[in-house]
Amino acid sequence: MQTYDLSGGKLCDTLPAALRADILSGAIAPGEKLPSKRRLAEHHGISINTVQNAYEQLIAEGYIESRERSGYYVSDLPTSLSSSALPPVGEEVTEQAPPVWLDLVTNTPDGTRFPFSLWARLMRRVLTEEGEALLAPLPAAGAPALQSAIAEYLRHGRGIAVEPCQVVIGAGTEYLYHLLLQLLGRERVYGLEDPGHSKIARIYALNGVRFRPVPLDEGGVCADAPERLGIEVLHISPNHHFPTGIVTPATRRRALLAWMGQGDRYIIEDDYDSEFRFTGRPIPPLFGMDTADRVIYMNTFSKTIAPSMRISYMVLPKPLLARYRQQLGFYACPVPAFEQYTLARFLREGHFERHLHRMRTFYRTRRDAVIALLQSAPFAARIRIKEADAGLHFLVELKIDRSDGELRSVLEKGGIRVAFLGDYHIEKKEGKTDTHTIVLNYSGVEPERLAEGIRRLCETL
Amino acid sequence: MQTYDLSGGKLCDTLPAALRADILSGAIAPGEKLPSKRRLAEHHGISINTVQNAYEQLIAEGYIESRERSGYYVSDLPTSLSSSALPPVGEEVTEQAPPVWLDLVTNTPDGTRFPFSLWARLMRRVLTEEGEALLAPLPAAGAPALQSAIAEYLRHGRGIAVEPCQVVIGAGTEYLYHLLLQLLGRERVYGLEDPGHSKIARIYALNGVRFRPVPLDEGGVCADAPERLGIEVLHISPNHHFPTGIVTPATRRRALLAWMGQGDRYIIEDDYDSEFRFTGRPIPPLFGMDTADRVIYMNTFSKTIAPSMRISYMVLPKPLLARYRQQLGFYACPVPAFEQYTLARFLREGHFERHLHRMRTFYRTRRDAVIALLQSAPFAARIRIKEADAGLHFLVELKIDRSDGELRSVLEKGGIRVAFLGDYHIEKKEGKTDTHTIVLNYSGVEPERLAEGIRRLCETL
Repeated sequence: MQTYDLSGGKLCDTLPAALRADILSGAIAPGEKLPSKRRLAEHHGISINTVQNAYEQLIAEGYIESRERSGYYVSDLPTSLSSSALPPVGEEVTEQAPPVWLDLVTNTPDGTRFPFSLWARLMRRVLTEEGEALLAPLPAAGAPALQSAIAEYLRHGRGIAVEPCQVVIGAGTEYLYHLLLQLLGRERVYGLEDPGHSKIARIYALNGVRFRPVPLDEGGVCADAPERLGIEVLHISPNHHFPTGIVTPATRRRALLAWMGQGDRYIIEDDYDSEFRFTGRPIPPLFGMDTADRVIYMNTFSKTIAPSMRISYMVLPKPLLARYRQQLGFYACPVPAFEQYTLARFLREGHFERHLHRMRTFYRTRRDAVIALLQSAPFAARIRIKEADAGLHFLVELKIDRSDGELRSVLEKGGIRVAFLGDYHIEKKEGKTDTHTIVLNYSGVEPERLAEGIRRLCETL
Repeated sequence: MQTYDLSGGKLCDTLPAALRADILSGAIAPGEKLPSKRRLAEHHGISINTVQNAYEQLIAEGYIESRERSGYYVSDLPTSLSSSALPPVGEEVTEQAPPVWLDLVTNTPDGTRFPFSLWARLMRRVLTEEGEALLAPLPAAGAPALQSAIAEYLRHGRGIAVEPCQVVIGAGTEYLYHLLLQLLGRERVYGLEDPGHSKIARIYALNGVRFRPVPLDEGGVCADAPERLGIEVLHISPNHHFPTGIVTPATRRRALLAWMGQGDRYIIEDDYDSEFRFTGRPIPPLFGMDTADRVIYMNTFSKTIAPSMRISYMVLPKPLLARYRQQLGFYACPVPAFEQYTLARFLREGHFERHLHRMRTFYRTRRDAVIALLQSAPFAARIRIKEADAGLHFLVELKIDRSDGELRSVLEKGGIRVAFLGDYHIEKKEGKTDTHTIVLNYSGVEPERLAEGIRRLCETL
């Protein structure tokens, strides 16, 4: 039995916190039985009442459930549950949202597929071989070994030639967005794809940056929109747009580069899930077409390795690199040396490309299974699958009259969490709220569970 | 012999980069002899010319030196050397600053004192015991185990009672400043101690935040200044001000809290090196005196463990915590789970307090040795040591006529890098530039080297 350190404060606070931590971290798995109240109490030399209260609190919060005459079990949690899902401090939980049983919104990579034991072996080697060098401060842009390994990967894997010194390593793309705002200047007007990642808009808003939603057509960002809207920095994902899945064609790319060339303008190219393309050849990044040295390339290892792996990077064109060093070179690199050295080896020794290859196969199989289930469902005639060639999500167009809101609430009552295309609209337009299109993030969806979800759903509807 | 991966680009770029990386990371130590040109060339199957060019470039950059009839050796580098010290990309190096031989500016903790093998053991245990749980996403504020361990440390070590959930973990204080700007709002007027950490002013400026320098007297921030200057968020280090070393007395603390209580105002308390107090009892943080729930406590492990350890934390008062979760809870915690779990164990098992205890003894001995050397120097009658009770720096007041600028340039010619009190003035005032006071950061100063520096200096003067 796990022993908890309960010395850190009032027992009535620490026991639930310790249990919650273990559930959130996965140390106690969903479905696992918790020790009996008596056993846990004896183990820690505390009263059964204290344990009883802790268990009751966790039931109220939805972490565990009590099964009659059997005991306490860890609930199935959506993998995205984090402290933001907890009730705010000092507020009573008044309304309990139904527990999420099937999450079609969060694209958490399947952690069990990651070659963890190999990774752990690399970590042990780094620990032994690098030793105290791991304590030395790193250059602001990151460990040169990782910069080189990323540059090499980009050359092989994405077909773009960059020098290692152009790679700037950050603790997640969110961190890099902050750096870029400081580098390009907050007085500029930023353009964001609409629909798009609402998180980017949120970060820009929190940082007081002026940004404008830029409309899309079937080729991605409308060619004339950036000029018309007075955009100065355009933030796009032309290789696989989220959530529509659009791949921007070459002519549109050239048009956007032409727009960029006409002034002191920049394009931030977010290549967030280019690794998972199932049909045809990989889409070469816009970065490689840029002759004006003003496209910034960004990518992350959160999706390809693990979300807890807070390593992302951007590739700065050389003129910006000089400015970066001068203005932002004083910032310490936020990623620990240890993770950087481990990842550098993982890349250099070919494990990353092998892992990607396995994951592509795995995701393709899963995507096929999910689509097959949907297409054999009783409601198959009323849906249409779109943009399933790439990435960890696709669109499900619904030929139904129900509004998105109605359908969402029916699904939520059944414990199914979905997102509609409209949820990703930055500019909410009156009367245009019903998109009748679900953005289905399938990477974490067990086909068996989806089959059961479809059965339940058909009963409800 | 170290093997370099030279596949990442043009060889004439990658070999110097690989060598530079090894020197910066400490993998090749100062004073160490490099392989002969012939040997390195053979080892990598490259031409001697390529190696020759690489060595010459590194000599020009000051990383290595050639000793006649002996070979190439790694130069003594200041530990703060990072990519920002490198010439900007695409620019020629026109003027070469003399190499720094004795750095009295950078307070890099002495890495060799850190119990690295113990740390590595903990890392191995975390790897084995946590396993794949290390891949799971963490709550935004950090790993609950680390939050608890920090709360416990604050209770024992700093005498303040906080709940684990109030602790927000970030990748360095710079990261936390960014979070705080978003949390408290960028439209507010921030007040910064003047003199003070110029880095904070730089971050505020880069983020377009209005800030005003707040003057100090012998008790720290002048009691009436925040009100007079229209400050809304006051950023201070009352327990040991950098660089003056002032400890703000209780009456002044009460006055500042009274100012804070009169409006929607906040105090950010930076407790950056409170662990290293040598005389008397530790100074209890302002946080513990706050009854209005508007003091934010900040600290970092960069100074106490290693600068490459990008883990800092802040303690939010509860009303702010609710706002943090609502507004910023979507940010992923930027610190890898692995480092958080390791640090949690390091704290929980008492290693951190033992390490602090050893470091206090070590730094006190070093400080005493440095002061003894200065007081027995030929110029001893013309200096006065001030504020040496705490922290990793003290002041050296100079009774001389030379301007700060003149003295700096004499010292720099001898390879001695110093900072004057005036360097930390945020508001540079005409005619007030000569402070005749050196801020001596001694933590990385070898007494033997200082003795030699004093000899050289006396010859020069």
